[in-house]
Amino acid sequence: MTKRQLKLGANLNGVGNSISFWRHPSIPTDASVSLEFYKQQALKAEEGKFDLLFIADGLYINEKSNPHFLNRFEPLTLLSALSAVTTNIGLVATLSTSYSEPFTVARQFASIDKLSGGRAGWNVVTSPLEGSALNFGKGEHPQHSLRYEIAEEHVEVVKGLWDSWEDDAFVGDKAAGVFFDPSKLHTLHHQGKHFSVQGPLNIARSKQGHPVIFQAGSSESGKDLAARTADAIYTAHETLEEARAFYQDVKARAASYGRKPEELLIFPGIGPIVGRTEEEAERKYREIAELVSIDQALNYLGRYFDHFDFSQFPLDEPFPDIGDLGSNSFRSTTDKIKQEAREQGLTLREVALRASTPRTSFIGTPDRVADLIQAWFEEGAADGFNVRTVVPNGLADFVDHVVPILQARGLYRTEYESDTLRGNLGLPVPANRYAAQNLAKAVHEA
Amino acid sequence: MTKRQLKLGANLNGVGNSISFWRHPSIPTDASVSLEFYKQQALKAEEGKFDLLFIADGLYINEKSNPHFLNRFEPLTLLSALSAVTTNIGLVATLSTSYSEPFTVARQFASIDKLSGGRAGWNVVTSPLEGSALNFGKGEHPQHSLRYEIAEEHVEVVKGLWDSWEDDAFVGDKAAGVFFDPSKLHTLHHQGKHFSVQGPLNIARSKQGHPVIFQAGSSESGKDLAARTADAIYTAHETLEEARAFYQDVKARAASYGRKPEELLIFPGIGPIVGRTEEEAERKYREIAELVSIDQALNYLGRYFDHFDFSQFPLDEPFPDIGDLGSNSFRSTTDKIKQEAREQGLTLREVALRASTPRTSFIGTPDRVADLIQAWFEEGAADGFNVRTVVPNGLADFVDHVVPILQARGLYRTEYESDTLRGNLGLPVPANRYAAQNLAKAVHEA
Ligand SMILES: Cc1cc2nc3c(=O)[nH]c(=O)nc-3n(C[C@H](O)[C@H](O)[C@H](O)COP(=O)(O)O)c2cc1C
Ligand SMILES: Cc1cc2nc3c(=O)[nH]c(=O)nc-3n(C[C@H](O)[C@H](O)[C@H](O)COP(=O)(O)O)c2cc1C
Repeated sequence: MTKRQLKLGANLNGVGNSISFWRHPSIPTDASVSLEFYKQQALKAEEGKFDLLFIADGLYINEKSNPHFLNRFEPLTLLSALSAVTTNIGLVATLSTSYSEPFTVARQFASIDKLSGGRAGWNVVTSPLEGSALNFGKGEHPQHSLRYEIAEEHVEVVKGLWDSWEDDAFVGDKAAGVFFDPSKLHTLHHQGKHFSVQGPLNIARSKQGHPVIFQAGSSESGKDLAARTADAIYTAHETLEEARAFYQDVKARAASYGRKPEELLIFPGIGPIVGRTEEEAERKYREIAELVSIDQALNYLGRYFDHFDFSQFPLDEPFPDIGDLGSNSFRSTTDKIKQEAREQGLTLREVALRASTPRTSFIGTPDRVADLIQAWFEEGAADGFNVRTVVPNGLADFVDHVVPILQARGLYRTEYESDTLRGNLGLPVPANRYAAQNLAKAVHEA
Repeated sequence: MTKRQLKLGANLNGVGNSISFWRHPSIPTDASVSLEFYKQQALKAEEGKFDLLFIADGLYINEKSNPHFLNRFEPLTLLSALSAVTTNIGLVATLSTSYSEPFTVARQFASIDKLSGGRAGWNVVTSPLEGSALNFGKGEHPQHSLRYEIAEEHVEVVKGLWDSWEDDAFVGDKAAGVFFDPSKLHTLHHQGKHFSVQGPLNIARSKQGHPVIFQAGSSESGKDLAARTADAIYTAHETLEEARAFYQDVKARAASYGRKPEELLIFPGIGPIVGRTEEEAERKYREIAELVSIDQALNYLGRYFDHFDFSQFPLDEPFPDIGDLGSNSFRSTTDKIKQEAREQGLTLREVALRASTPRTSFIGTPDRVADLIQAWFEEGAADGFNVRTVVPNGLADFVDHVVPILQARGLYRTEYESDTLRGNLGLPVPANRYAAQNLAKAVHEA
């Protein structure tokens, strides 16, 4: 048996997740809306045999939003375009269950899945920002627990629609004039609390069966949703210990729902900074951090707390007590910020600077970064990583210098095993629920 | 001044709009879900200097639906993929205003527009099929007039969102740390009867300003919607006279709303059948028509009438009186079918066979087809044509044999004038509504 293999995603985000990354001389200011930019990143990731490209998303902006959020491609259209210029790499788009119709979501992901020959994935989110409601004619952003309740039903409907056609439904017998076998077409007839969707879907399954389901959201409800319905989780942790606790928690939940824990993959996000020497890596970090002013950093911090105005507090005193604020948005993130500030006695300025330019622990020489990855991977903290670029050429540095080390250590593929995303992730093709039923019926009748 | 130029769209539809086209030996049975098939068609159309690719759509199927409708790509994802492998040709996707959110529609079309460098278009439809409601949790398909009322507000909101950012909003001054000019960001704050959408949109305009708006729907309400809001109309007519009446009607409406008639382009759909000789062309038609059985033809006819079962009537007697049936679905089509049957005394069998395999008048040698096109174009019946493939290699025959004749006659381009769709169609870039206001204000204050 071959050694358990590490998985890698490339989290592409144009001018970057940091508020000032775009100011670096080497970053094109239009990167977030440049197909050429994304294409080059995608090809580099495919050169590095990455499992997948990952595109985050958001549904509300105002003049205080992060530059990348203001003017960026919509993920499904972007990944459809990239499907035509890539061959093996998976294509995972973020889409919110709080502001979409299951029929349309099922269709668009199934369509990318067919366009790409079985490489699509859906990162299920519930939308953190209250303002999203205003763009979709809703009076109120649904509360955290309601959002997750909706998400669960939404995903269930989408998966049901994906099974509308059994894999051998399209007979295509020209002589007999039989295009399809009607007994292999199934109408969902879903009537639930939040959705009522008849079906069938007007597109069949790809060779990977269903697009891969990612879930991003680390609260109790988020972990439960993932444990029940997802193939993979995108999460964020600062330390190996924290990541390990999360990993064990989620794998145990999956088992408690009767699933095989190895069929729910855990991908912490990392923003590695790689230099030929430790000093070079540190220099790269400083070059980026120094692009941010304190005003910008405060504003950025406020984003997580429903655009709260932190500039009313003194900068160099302990992080202020702001009560429950932010708990209906990015709850897991805001809890962590408050906890860290309390435990490490951070000032508002320190919290703000770290929030705007997190100083990753995955920093240093290629060997050091590979060591950290290996430790997390082997010590039960990760099945793979979602790699975000946080310094210029970050993805290329990682592909050129870290990937070869991981390959030499036998942790990572040197060639794609498959041309589907499930194939590369080592996930099984889900059986069509109706084909499974027919089989059971046949066995029962025999 | 150069001669007025003809415009051409390629209406791509996989295994075809006819129910039995897929049975022809030369048609791949999976054409409707084959990127390779669409890519070849797209490249052929671009070789023929076509203005645009056009993708129709539908939101409801059952076991009686047309083969192409059962299992096909979703148009926005398909055209996004094609944007990456084409250079000049426009990309027009059909999307219904009855079952979509303006914020998502605005975003996805704006995103294709950026991905393609200004080549996107939206074919606005209101969804003919009653069953669509069942896939979107709606108890009832909105009535014809309500659908058009919704459509008008929907398109208005989408256009408003497209203007969220003025064209010079993104300053990108790295030294000063100014990513954008907040005075050039505009929040729509739309509160209407059917939609309430705050904005702003999280993507800026492409170099063509707005995606081109097509409208397909030829009833009175359809013509009015187009005259007020569209850049182009896709329509269907059997005779030059009928097409000319429609053309004059719509152009007059546009003028009555204060618009320049030449800024609303009229594209009848045609399904030309080209042969080296008249006989070869006729043979091609028969080869296709003979693939359809009478049962299939009746079923196909029923599709227009809300899946009415015509098999209960005698085949060789006059077309039955079915009253008002179908008027809430494809009204203009069903009216025409009923009228033709009455006027020409057609039997049910004749109506059904014509409905399943229309015998186009655009049939014959390349010269004859070019003559017809020229006549419609010069005699006030069309500004361009949406060319549908109805026989194998239909698009290639048209590009290889008819286009050169149109070019030789000076009616059609030999090179693209522009790399945007508006540029090629000769349509102006719409001014940003806020930039226009600012200009007016500046003039007023001066
Ligand atoms: C690592 C991570 C990545 C996320 N990415 C996105 C995203 O791209 N778009 C989005 O709308 N929400 C994103 N979220 C938000 C969650 O999906 C969810 O909507 C919100 O965080 C509340 O869930 P939680 O409290 O379970 O974390 C992300 C959350 C986490 C933890
Ligand atoms: C030439 C033509 C093409 C059309 N194409 C589509 C289509 O692709 N998808 C769709 O849902 N409706 C399509 N429609 C339907 C119309 O958009 C509209 O929903 C329906 O016909 C009722 O409008 P009408 O009575 O104004 O024609 C088309 C209509 C016409 C006349």
